Amino acid sequence: MRWSDGFIAVDWGTTNRRAYRIGAGGAVEDRLEDERGILSVPHGGFPGAVEEIRAALGELPLLMAGMVGSNRGWRDAPYVPCPAGLPELAARLQWVEPARIAIVPGVCFSDGAAADVMRGEEVQLLGAYAEGLVPADALVCHPGTHNKWVRIEDGRIAAFRTVMTGEMFSLLSRHSILSDMLGGEVAPGTAFDAGVEAGLAGGPLTGELFSVRARALLGKARREDAASYTSGLLIGTDVRAGVAAAPSEGPVYVMGRPDLTGLYAAALAAAGREAKELEGDAAFLCGARHLAELLQ
Amino acid sequence: MRWSDGFIAVDWGTTNRRAYRIGAGGAVEDRLEDERGILSVPHGGFPGAVEEIRAALGELPLLMAGMVGSNRGWRDAPYVPCPAGLPELAARLQWVEPARIAIVPGVCFSDGAAADVMRGEEVQLLGAYAEGLVPADALVCHPGTHNKWVRIEDGRIAAFRTVMTGEMFSLLSRHSILSDMLGGEVAPGTAFDAGVEAGLAGGPLTGELFSVRARALLGKARREDAASYTSGLLIGTDVRAGVAAAPSEGPVYVMGRPDLTGLYAAALAAAGREAKELEGDAAFLCGARHLAELLQ
Repeated sequence: MRWSDGFIAVDWGTTNRRAYRIGAGGAVEDRLEDERGILSVPHGGFPGAVEEIRAALGELPLLMAGMVGSNRGWRDAPYVPCPAGLPELAARLQWVEPARIAIVPGVCFSDGAAADVMRGEEVQLLGAYAEGLVPADALVCHPGTHNKWVRIEDGRIAAFRTVMTGEMFSLLSRHSILSDMLGGEVAPGTAFDAGVEAGLAGGPLTGELFSVRARALLGKARREDAASYTSGLLIGTDVRAGVAAAPSEGPVYVMGRPDLTGLYAAALAAAGREAKELEGDAAFLCGARHLAELLQ
Repeated sequence: MRWSDGFIAVDWGTTNRRAYRIGAGGAVEDRLEDERGILSVPHGGFPGAVEEIRAALGELPLLMAGMVGSNRGWRDAPYVPCPAGLPELAARLQWVEPARIAIVPGVCFSDGAAADVMRGEEVQLLGAYAEGLVPADALVCHPGTHNKWVRIEDGRIAAFRTVMTGEMFSLLSRHSILSDMLGGEVAPGTAFDAGVEAGLAGGPLTGELFSVRARALLGKARREDAASYTSGLLIGTDVRAGVAAAPSEGPVYVMGRPDLTGLYAAALAAAGREAKELEGDAAFLCGARHLAELLQ
């Protein structure tokens, strides 16, 4: 069984997993997507969870990335330090079964007191570069629960910073004093743009958040706009810091779920920066294919 | 039954209530404190909840402040706009029973797109001024679930801004990716000071928060320091914006629970500002007494 004859690529996160059977020619032949994220796998349950994947997609080698390689996952795959390219990842794969099951390590960044980690995004980032979708030197924004601002240099991840923008919106909408106002759909438009503008202005976020409620109480804003406004406020705050740390000209590559990349592209435009959107799942497949080529 | 013969002052918040019997001479003769905040009172239950207070403290007039006067409380007492002093509050009391049960209105601030509200703090703030504990022109910081930065001018609340610092710490420690690290006690000291320094430096809060986890993962910080560091980070961020909006010289009056005022005083010192701490419950009693005098 050789990787070039086909393999299964798995993006195994905290709450979801996506697995793809990739044929000898590199095409996706079949896929499995479910909510069997690592937190749903009981202690000792990973061999069985992997057998579910093979039962669905075939008896093939597995290349897995994401939180499955964390200390909460199946096997801890130690972080590769920046600068990290696909060759560095391939050299540090965590082999669960020789030549048959490999876990891709995450990437860490360390500089003085600064410290950061990623797991899963590295395959997408380096896959997009390997595929020619992102140039060798670029600023990439990767929104999600934890948005990453990533500096690519010479085709490797040189530095990055994580901002918990998505998680903050989730905390606010589920558990905060704003929760009864944030149930609506987040959509581009006037309210989102107003939030972006407030975020780009750089006021203190925890103060701006309270004013969402106060303005509604005093009749200065519509409650039904609160979700889009608050999303815009968080994303605008995120973009302000992200582009301040990388003031160079040129587009920002925004990679991830299309609904999120669209919102970030709008906020980047408001900040005077061009955005190029890339689909995260497609980038993951690029990264998995290029990594597998390094294993032949 | 006259107010000068004695009354009961009630600070009735969302999750707690504190009631004090104040005698003819102004001394506290008895008190009741329990967790019967407004959220625990069922629809139509306020008359009974008030009878509990009178059963414990005596058949006296009641002066009540806090969330009991909100749209989630007993009777909505509309906000008094800034500038608001004790006479403005006395003129706009919400009388539930004539001459026997009054609810103190909250205060609102509105300036262009800015909007803010308070309920309960106004009695403490104006009570401290009436008692001579705070000068006629002062900057007051009132930490709590929702910290208030308040500008007192001519003995009235002229402007204020709310920052949800305490609520943010609670959200993070209960529900976020940091929750397993924030269970420890928050205490002044090296870790708190380091967090304050990071907060005063003004980096993006949602990025600084993620780095708390990353630094622990990479062995750059001790997990047991995370609660104090994160509290310092949030308070430092809060203080940075609070003093930037009021750059004048002179002390900042910090009013509230002594554990919180101590942490804010330390952060203010790190920001180069003198802090004068005031006990919030004592200030509430001052405000209730001076308001009752206006009802004679």
